[in-house]
Order: sequence, then structure tokens, then C-alpha cells
Amino acid sequence: MNWEIAFVIGVAGALIALAFAFIQSRKVMKFSEGTEKMKKIAASIRSGAKAYLKRQFKVVIIFYMIVVVLLAILAVFGYISVFMPFAFLIGGLLTQLSAFIGMKIATFANSRTANAAEQSLNKGLRVAFSSGTVLSFTVVGLSLLDVSLWFLLLRFVFDLGPTEIADNMVMFGVGVAVFALFARVGGGIFTKAADVGADLVGKVEAGIPEDDPRNPAVIADNVGDNVGDVAGMGADLYESYIKSMHASIALGYAAFMHLGYDMVFASMFLPVALAVVGVIASLAGTFFIRTKENATKKQLLDTLRFGTYGAAAIAAVGFAPVTFLIMGADNWFGLYLAILVGLVAGCLIAYFTEYFTSAHYKPTKNLAKASETGSATFIIGGIALGMKSTIAPVLIIIAAVVGSFLAAGGVFGFVFGDADAVMSFNSGLYGIGLAAVGMLSTLGLTLACDAYGPVADNAGGIAEMAGMDPKVRERTDTLDSIGNTTAATGKGFAIGSAALTSLALLVSFIKLAVREIDALRPAGAEPFTMADLNLNIQNPSVLIGIFIGAMLVFVFSAMTMSAVKRAAQSIVLEVRRQFREIAGIMEGKADPDYATCVDLCTKSALREMVGPTVLGVVVPIITGLIFGVEGVIGLIGGSTVVGFVMAVFMANSGGAWDNAKKYIEAGNHGGKGSEAHKAAVIGDTVGDPFKDTTGPSLNTLFKMVATVSMVFVGIIAAYSIF
Amino acid sequence: MNWEIAFVIGVAGALIALAFAFIQSRKVMKFSEGTEKMKKIAASIRSGAKAYLKRQFKVVIIFYMIVVVLLAILAVFGYISVFMPFAFLIGGLLTQLSAFIGMKIATFANSRTANAAEQSLNKGLRVAFSSGTVLSFTVVGLSLLDVSLWFLLLRFVFDLGPTEIADNMVMFGVGVAVFALFARVGGGIFTKAADVGADLVGKVEAGIPEDDPRNPAVIADNVGDNVGDVAGMGADLYESYIKSMHASIALGYAAFMHLGYDMVFASMFLPVALAVVGVIASLAGTFFIRTKENATKKQLLDTLRFGTYGAAAIAAVGFAPVTFLIMGADNWFGLYLAILVGLVAGCLIAYFTEYFTSAHYKPTKNLAKASETGSATFIIGGIALGMKSTIAPVLIIIAAVVGSFLAAGGVFGFVFGDADAVMSFNSGLYGIGLAAVGMLSTLGLTLACDAYGPVADNAGGIAEMAGMDPKVRERTDTLDSIGNTTAATGKGFAIGSAALTSLALLVSFIKLAVREIDALRPAGAEPFTMADLNLNIQNPSVLIGIFIGAMLVFVFSAMTMSAVKRAAQSIVLEVRRQFREIAGIMEGKADPDYATCVDLCTKSALREMVGPTVLGVVVPIITGLIFGVEGVIGLIGGSTVVGFVMAVFMANSGGAWDNAKKYIEAGNHGGKGSEAHKAAVIGDTVGDPFKDTTGPSLNTLFKMVATVSMVFVGIIAAYSIF
Repeated sequence: MNWEIAFVIGVAGALIALAFAFIQSRKVMKFSEGTEKMKKIAASIRSGAKAYLKRQFKVVIIFYMIVVVLLAILAVFGYISVFMPFAFLIGGLLTQLSAFIGMKIATFANSRTANAAEQSLNKGLRVAFSSGTVLSFTVVGLSLLDVSLWFLLLRFVFDLGPTEIADNMVMFGVGVAVFALFARVGGGIFTKAADVGADLVGKVEAGIPEDDPRNPAVIADNVGDNVGDVAGMGADLYESYIKSMHASIALGYAAFMHLGYDMVFASMFLPVALAVVGVIASLAGTFFIRTKENATKKQLLDTLRFGTYGAAAIAAVGFAPVTFLIMGADNWFGLYLAILVGLVAGCLIAYFTEYFTSAHYKPTKNLAKASETGSATFIIGGIALGMKSTIAPVLIIIAAVVGSFLAAGGVFGFVFGDADAVMSFNSGLYGIGLAAVGMLSTLGLTLACDAYGPVADNAGGIAEMAGMDPKVRERTDTLDSIGNTTAATGKGFAIGSAALTSLALLVSFIKLAVREIDALRPAGAEPFTMADLNLNIQNPSVLIGIFIGAMLVFVFSAMTMSAVKRAAQSIVLEVRRQFREIAGIMEGKADPDYATCVDLCTKSALREMVGPTVLGVVVPIITGLIFGVEGVIGLIGGSTVVGFVMAVFMANSGGAWDNAKKYIEAGNHGGKGSEAHKAAVIGDTVGDPFKDTTGPSLNTLFKMVATVSMVFVGIIAAYSIF
Repeated sequence: MNWEIAFVIGVAGALIALAFAFIQSRKVMKFSEGTEKMKKIAASIRSGAKAYLKRQFKVVIIFYMIVVVLLAILAVFGYISVFMPFAFLIGGLLTQLSAFIGMKIATFANSRTANAAEQSLNKGLRVAFSSGTVLSFTVVGLSLLDVSLWFLLLRFVFDLGPTEIADNMVMFGVGVAVFALFARVGGGIFTKAADVGADLVGKVEAGIPEDDPRNPAVIADNVGDNVGDVAGMGADLYESYIKSMHASIALGYAAFMHLGYDMVFASMFLPVALAVVGVIASLAGTFFIRTKENATKKQLLDTLRFGTYGAAAIAAVGFAPVTFLIMGADNWFGLYLAILVGLVAGCLIAYFTEYFTSAHYKPTKNLAKASETGSATFIIGGIALGMKSTIAPVLIIIAAVVGSFLAAGGVFGFVFGDADAVMSFNSGLYGIGLAAVGMLSTLGLTLACDAYGPVADNAGGIAEMAGMDPKVRERTDTLDSIGNTTAATGKGFAIGSAALTSLALLVSFIKLAVREIDALRPAGAEPFTMADLNLNIQNPSVLIGIFIGAMLVFVFSAMTMSAVKRAAQSIVLEVRRQFREIAGIMEGKADPDYATCVDLCTKSALREMVGPTVLGVVVPIITGLIFGVEGVIGLIGGSTVVGFVMAVFMANSGGAWDNAKKYIEAGNHGGKGSEAHKAAVIGDTVGDPFKDTTGPSLNTLFKMVATVSMVFVGIIAAYSIF
């Protein structure tokens, strides 16, 4: 079959996803926003979030313009293709758009969730979860559209061959990457500056409850949930999702070149087809998420889990005929196994993330006990817990890499006595890419499970501020805590897929670099092959690259954490000032000046997000110009490995502190107000930037390092010192 | 000249160092121990420390016996040489001996320092520093003796050729490595469990000052200084020092094989000769450390610095003729430059360590300010500071690796137009080894500067407990704070040399592995060469090895920190029990039960040190048996890079918290007793295991991974799965 034209199926899948997102958004909007007071609060959160994204966009667009000019110059001199500047812009804008849509619906859904929760837990869940699906299906739809349309354009309008298409597409992720890093870092700083600042003065110093309307930083805190946990996360997953397809397309091309054009295009189409299957499976999964009106927390959690794992099961079943159809009887089975490996690995990482961070299990329970001997032991214990928790994800990723590589490389044919089976290094690498696609295929559901948490969190804030019946707050808290559990699952998928994607990109980079160096040789010279590249770990350039990669992860972490510290300090001073200067604020007679806190957070986030992002862009270029392609390869490897381990550590330490605190608040070890609780609050505050700023940003960092290197490979190959 | 026999010069140098250590110990013992009360306190610290080391030895010896039997079996089957079991035992015992001597003199010097400080600051410094030189010269002397005697034995008694000698010696470090890891981890857990436990109940809960005799954990705390900061550190540096020689000997052999036997032995002797020069330079340096009787703190610090840098300068000058004489006019200059690179890199890392952790500079001052917004921002700030501080050491190590490689590889001959200059990969690698030797050459002085700190700390404790004049405590505090600054310098050298040594060992391992694999080939087969080893970072085995290496560092860190947390919790409970149950303890009418706390710390440390050590031994073997030589090479690389960066981060975060707290105690940001101070105390407690348990143990961990791999290379080459 002619698989080139099949990319229109990708477009169709994208349109289905987008249509579903649209339907879900209409569904959300039909719910009532509640009382006037709730409307007013929601409106100020919405306007704060919108204002932030608008101003973020203004900063980003300046950066974009600089990069586009730079890319245009590179294109004119032939170092990159002429499509790059356009792809950069379009990719960035689509990421921005999906983050914007997701955030917008979240800021409409928060008050509606609070209002629905007044009727029942189940109704609250439905509103919040529906708004989560708007984000997730927008992300899935727009990225699928981006990939499919570009392919059709390059193939049928510009008449490019598979090599050029692969080389182009694998670089197209750079616009996405840059925006995702901006959104993750900026949003992460905003949300945690507001959260930490509000807690430190409000909860710790003034002794008023969380989300108390007297706290001047309370609106900023709620805005933060939307710009960080919704918009930032959406951009992050958009990147992982599209890049897993980009990398697989590039690797598929290389793996099946020897079998002719038809197979090449089939292998390039397979990742897109898998994504379409995933869209359908996720869609089906949303229909599993049904409960009785008076469902308990456990039932709600069970139905969410049933939906998630159900979608994964449907996808797993659906992948088989699709892979068989596209790749043919001789090739399909190993590739199918590789995809399954990815899907299973995602579920396993998700399980261990929950095991290490949920108060239902031993590690977090033990951690909670450490609060009895003070915040120092609580903090040491949390750091140790997070570090120890890296063991499972690392072993799972290793198993996934080895498993998908061997399966797709044909080892099972060997083992089962298939005489025609041929082990192929290239199809093994393609398998790693497919594993990442498989892991992310049900993103429509896993991301929705993650994204509804901040909506519930916001709803709780609105319930508190609007003085609603305490049972509403109780219900939104329940929703929030279910969200914490499902978010752990979502994080597992995000982190695992980032690692696999980055490794697939590393491999694509190496192939690209070899071709670039070869192109620089004088006519008639021996062709430059992979074997001529000295990627030996003993090569000082490679080793130094690994060193720089490790250091980059630490320095980037330092910068983002310092940023939160500085921004939070400015909020602390502002809140203290308002408490001091606005008469009657504590008695509830005078309104605090919410806007100033939102503004401070906005300014801090925008100022502070530039440094880490620029660092991520500049380090690969400088490393490349000094230590060459080999140095960059070390850098990608080093930053991926260390970034992955560090991201798991930070996310899990932060998650465990948070849940240990909640476990204490539920009445254990002395409950709220005890010394143990005070110790836990401090630990939780330390964990805030760990889990919501630095940890998730690291995913975006190492994916971006790989992509930026790709774009500059021509320059690096031509001009590096060593 | 016949450089084989020149190794007797190594023996002579060793004897000079040991004689000096003996003279210094007599000098220390001549000072008076002070009052009866002081004698009694010192005696209980001494007996606690001795008891700990004795029991530690009992645990270690069991482990040793198991390993010796295992090694004997391996030797019988021909996987390792017959010398290995003996070398393992002797190396381990000598390390233990030097740690024991250093600790013993420290426990005699503490009360003497307190007593001398009653007369003047200068006298106190002299006693404490002299006891530091006993440790440092014992370490230097015994390891130099070990290396030189083994060489003479293997060469002239067993008549081995250079290849066999090199292969043997590079593995001989494994006994040292295992003991060093036990000592570092066990001592680190002991000292911090006691310190954290004593502080949490004493300072934070009961509000009594540090080192108050009413605190039941106070003796344990002082014992901890001796077993952790003296014995543990001595063993750690013993390992770095001897291994830098081992690795250089092995690399020297490979680099000059083509120039004939004389040059081979010359290159093997050069590291030993440099060490002898270093002994003499360090000895000379100790004579620079003189001040007037009424010297100020600044003058004392200046004289210590003058001594340290003076010794480095003398060594730098002395290395030139020695290198010229041994390596000849054609080869000396590049090698000499490589040595200098190491020496300068050590000084630079030391400078940046001080910059990031001393309250004289901006970073720690800024950190202190963060305490005003509470312990959460203080802790976030400290973590960020430590992570950011990794940038300088990483860049310096990169520069040192590149610089020493290029210099020794002959690039300068090239650049300066020497027509005969030949770039040699192997002599470049030898240069990396020499850089490590150069960096450690003045260990006699840098280790003494580090080791006198705990003695001054102990002296302060004794002054407090014996109720001496407050001016004594003031003076010992001054000594302690000088010690903190010089310790930062010492840590710089320890950490930098560990990284260089480990990289040199990595290279030696690769060479060894190639020979082992080659030996396994059937007779008449093509010889297996370096080029046949797939060390490509794209090789899944290598990549997985790097992943496991990164994870090992995180998991090891988690285990050591959890150990401190658990041990400290048990001390907290015991101290609380004594406060509750012993009537009159708070009024000073009844003596606390010090021995129980010492015993608890001993038991915890011994129980908890086994896990991390076994992990360090087992992971390389398992990785090797699954992923083969290539996996192990990735593992060594990954654990070295990540371990180095993590060690710098932890040491500097911990150091900065400590000094920021002291800066606040000196009257800044509200001074002692303020909210800022309370926040800083919590941060400092979190930093305790960072800087004194996990951080320094990581150095020992990655050095050990390399050595263990070396010993098992025969088994790995023969039986690995992949």
C-alpha cells in the first residue's frame, strides 16, 4: 500500500481529538458558575492567568524573533533547511496555543467545579475531569495535526524524499522545545513563588488557613496552579508527544531503507498510526469513567484507574492489527512487542511513583514519622526517600531500552527459531522510539488525569474564599487528593517518555551528524561513516561532554530553585507589608491588594525564566563549538541520564513530603497544629520547587538539549575547535 | 640509569615521613593534658573512639576474610594473580593502621590543645596542627612504603616483568578501597548521628548550649569527630594517594613500552619520585608555619596558607629536575607540565570551595539572609548554592584532564615547533595520572590542615565540659573556624584528586580488560585489541552502565542519609529518655549516662555501614556479569562523573549552611536566639550528613567501583551475559 498518503489518517485522528476537546469544553461551559462572589473570584483568577500568559508570550516572542532571524541566516548559508524557521515558529505557536486553551478552560472550570461539588463529589469530578480532557485532547490533536500536515506538505507540495523529510522533521521540535522550557520554568516559578510566599506568611507567620481571602497572595496562588500545573505541563507533554513521533519517524526511515520506498514510508507512518489508535483508545477510556451519584472516594479513584488502564488495554489490542497491516507479516511482531514494552514500562513507572509518594505505602508513612524528631530529620528523610526511589524508574527504563531494542531488532525471531529473522541494529533503535510512542499513546487520558488536579485545587480555593459550605471544601479536597494520586501516574508517564524520547533523539542526532560531516568532505574523498566517529567513552571530548551534561543539570536546578527562593522572598515581603499597612485586613474589613502579588509573581517568573532557558540553549552550542559533535553526543547522553535521575528524585521527594504532610493533617502523629505538623509544613515548602518547578523542568531541559544540538549540527560539524 | 632499584628511594622517603610523624607525636605528648577533669573527659572520648575502631575492625575483618577466601579461589583458578589476597589484606591493614594512629594521637591532642589554648592561641594551634601532621605523614609514609616495597618484592624477589607488576599493582588498591569506604561511611554515620541527635534534643528542645556536659550525647559527639573526621578522612586520603600512584604506574608502563625497558621503569618510578619530593616539600612547609606568640586569627590563617602554598611552590620547583633526570630531555617537559596542571587545579578547586562556603564571600552571605524568611527558603537556598557551586570544579577538572592529556601527549612540542615531537595517546593518559599525583603530592600538609580541625573542635568541647575559662572556648572556636577554612582547601584537593584518580583507573581498567579478553581467545585467533571493544556511547551496554552509575550514586546517597536519620532518631529518643528518667540531670547534680549514647552510635554506625559498602562492591560485579566489560566501563564513567558532581554539591551545601549559621551567630540577621538563627540551625542540621557523611563517602564510592571492577575483570570477561 502507499503509506505516504496514509498521513491523511493522522489528520483525521487529529480532527477527532480536537472535536472531542471542543465538545468537552462546551460541556464544561454548560455548568453553572455559581454565585456572584464565586464568579468574581474566578474572574480575577482568570484575568491574572490570562495576563501572565500574555506577558509571557511577549517575552517569548522576542526570543523567537531572534532565533528565527538566526535560523533564517543559517538557512541562507545552507546549514539548515529553509523550512526550519517556519517549523520553529509554527511548532512554538501550536504549543503555546494548546497551553493557552487548556489554561483557559481550566480557569472557567474551577468555579464550576466548586459549584458542582456542592451537589455531589461525582458531579465535581465530572466538571474537573472534563476540563482536563480539553487540555489533553487539544495537546494530542494539535501535535498530531502538526506532524501529519508537515509530512503531507513536504512530500506532496515540496516533493521531498524520505531522507529530507526525516532530517527536517526531527529538527522541527526545536520551537516546541524552547516554548515548553519557557512555559515549564516560568509557570513553575510563578506557581511556587506564590504558593511558598502565601504559605510562609499566611500559614506559618499569621496563622490563617490556606486559601484564606485575607491573604493577599491567595489569588496569585490560584493563578499559579493554572499557569504552572496546567499550561506548563501541557506544553511539556506536547513536546514529549510530538518528539516521540519525530524521533521514530527519523529512526524508522533509517531502519527500513534497505527494504525500499514502500517500507520506508510505512515505518514513518507507523508512529502516527499508533497515535491515532491511542486517540481512539483514550476516547473510549473517557466513557469508562462513570460512577454512581453517591460514589465514595475509593470508587472515584477506581473508576479513574479503570479508565486509564482500560484505555491502555484497548490501545495494546489495537496496536496489533495496525502494526501488522502497516509493517507486514515479516516485520510486525518484534515492533509490536517494542511498543508494548513502552506501554508496560509507563504503567510500571507510574506504579512505583505512587508507591514512593503515596501515604498508603510504607515509604511515605515512615517519612511522616520522621517529622516527630523535627523538620531536619523530616527533610533528610525526604531527600533520602527521593534518591532511593530512583532505583525503580532507572531499572525500568533500562529494561525498556534493552527490551524494545532487542524485540524490534529481531532477537525474538532468533530465539523462536525463525530461520529468516535478521537482527538489525537500526530496527532495534527504531524500537526504542516506538516504545516512547507506545508509552505516550494514551496521553489523551493520562494527561487529563493529571490536569484535572489543579482545577480541583482552584475549586477548593474558590470554595474557601467565597465562604461556601465546608462540605464543598471537603469534597474538593477529596478531588484534589485523588488528583494527587493520578498525577503521580501522569508524572510517571511524562518522565519515562522524556527519557526514551531523548535517547531516541540522541541516536537520531548521531545519524544526522555523520551525514553532515560527510557532506563537508571534498568530492571524491572516502565517505564518512558512523565508524569514523570516535564515540568511545575514552575519547576526552565524549567524557567532557558527559561531565558538562551532569553539571548542566545541577546548575539548571540551582537556577530554578534560586529563582523560586528569590521570587517567594519578594512575595513574603509584599504580604507582610500589606498586613502591616492595610488597616482592617485581618478583620476582613478591608480587601487585600491581590493584583500586586499577581503582578510580582508575573514579573519574577518572566525575569527568572530567561536565564535557565538561555542556559539550556547556549550550553549545547558552546560545547559543540569547542568539543565538536563528539562532545555534544556526550552532553546529550550525560544530561539525559543525570537529568532523568534528578527529575525522579526531585518529583518523588516533593510528592512524598506533600503527602506525608497531608497524612499528618489527617490526624496522624499529632495532627494539625502539632510540632510534627509544623516540621512537615517546612518540609513541604522545601519540596514545592522540587516537585513543581525544578523536577518537571528537567524533563524539558534534556529534551531541548538534544533538539538544539540537532539544529546546530551543521555549524558544529563545520567549525568546532576539537 | 637503572630505575628499578630506585624504588628504594621511595622506601627512604616513606621512612622520612614516618620518622617525622613519630617526632611530631612525641612533641604533642610532651604538652600537659591539663587538670584532672580534663584528663577524665579526654579519657572517655579516647576510650569511646578506641572501642568504636576496635568493633569496626571486627566487622571489617569478617568481611575481609570472606573476600580473601573469594580472592584465593579466584587466584587458584587463575582469574587473578596469587599476590592479590595478600595485597588485599596488607593494603587494608595499612589503611586501618594509619587511620588508627591518626585517631589515637588526635584523642591525646584534644585536651592538650585545650590546655595550651589557655596560654595562647598560637600554642593551641601548634599542638592541634602537630597532631594533624602525625595523621598526614603516617598516611603518606605508609602508602609510599606499601607501593615501594611491593614493587621491589615483585621485581627482585618474584622476578616479575613490568606488565605483571603494573597489572598487579593497579588491583592492589582494592583492600584499601574497601576499608576506606567502611571507615568513611561508618565514621560519617557515627559522627553525624551523635551530632544531629545531640543538637536536636540539647540545643533545639532543651535549650542548653553545644557541648554542655549535661547532654548525654556530648561525649559521643566528640568521639564522632575522631572516628569520622580524623580516621575516616585519613583512610579516604590514604586511598586517593596510593591509587594515584598505582594508576600512574600502570599508565606509565603502557605509555613508554615502545622506548624499551629503561624508560618503562623510569615512567613507573616517576610517580613515586614525585611523592618523595612532595614529602620533602611538605616537611619544609611545616617549618613555614610559625607565628608570634600573640598572633591574631588572620595571622594564623595566613601562616597556614603560606605553609600550604609554600609547600606547593617548593614541590613545583622540585618536580622539574626530578622529572628531567628520570624521563630525560626528550620527554620531561610535557610530563612536567601535566604535573603542574594537577597541582594548580587542586589549588583552584580549593579556592572555589572556599569562595562558595565561607561567610567572607557573597554566596554564603546571601544564604544567611535567606534565613530571615524561614528555614524553608534557607534550605532551598543552600541546595541551590551547592548545586551552582559544581560549575567551577567541573570546569577545572575538565581543564585539568584536557591540559594534562595534551601536555603529556606532546602537543606543546608540536605548538612550539619541535620537529621531533610526537603526539602520543598513551603518554597523554599517563599525564592524567601524573596530574592526580601532582595534586596530592603535598598531602603531608593539606591533610594536616584538614585534620587539625576536629582536634580543635574536641578541645572546645573539653573546655566547655571541664568548665574552663570562657576565653579558652573562644580561642578553640577561633582555631575551629580557621580549621573550617583550611578544611575547605583540603576538601578541594580530596575531591579533585578522587576524580582524576578514578578517571586514570578507568583508563587502566580498559587496558586490562582488553588483555583479559585477548587471553581468553583460542590460540591462533586474531588478537583482541582496544578497537574491538565497542565503547561507543550508542552501545546499549555502555549507556546502561552510565545509567546504573548515576543511579548508584543516588541510591548510595539515600542509604547513607537514611542511616544518619535513623541513627540520629535513636539518639534523640535516648537523650530524651535520660532527661526524663535521670533525676537531677538538668541541674548538673547527676551525671548523664554518656556510655549508652556512645554505644548506640557505635552499633548504628556498624550496622548501617555494611549496606552501602556492600552495594558499592556488588553493583560493579552484577553489572559486569550482565552487561560485560562495556557495561562496567559505562558504570565507572557514570559513577565518577555523577559522584563527583554530587560530592561537590553536598560538601558545599553543607559547608555553606554551617558557615551561614556561624555568621548569624556572630551577630548578623538578629544573632543567636533569633528566628533567623533557629531557621539556620535546622538548615545546618540538614547539612550535617551532606557534608560529613554522604559527600565525602561518595569520593570513596566511585574510586572503589573502579577498583572492584578491576579485580573481577577476568571473571567478567569470561562469563558476562551480553
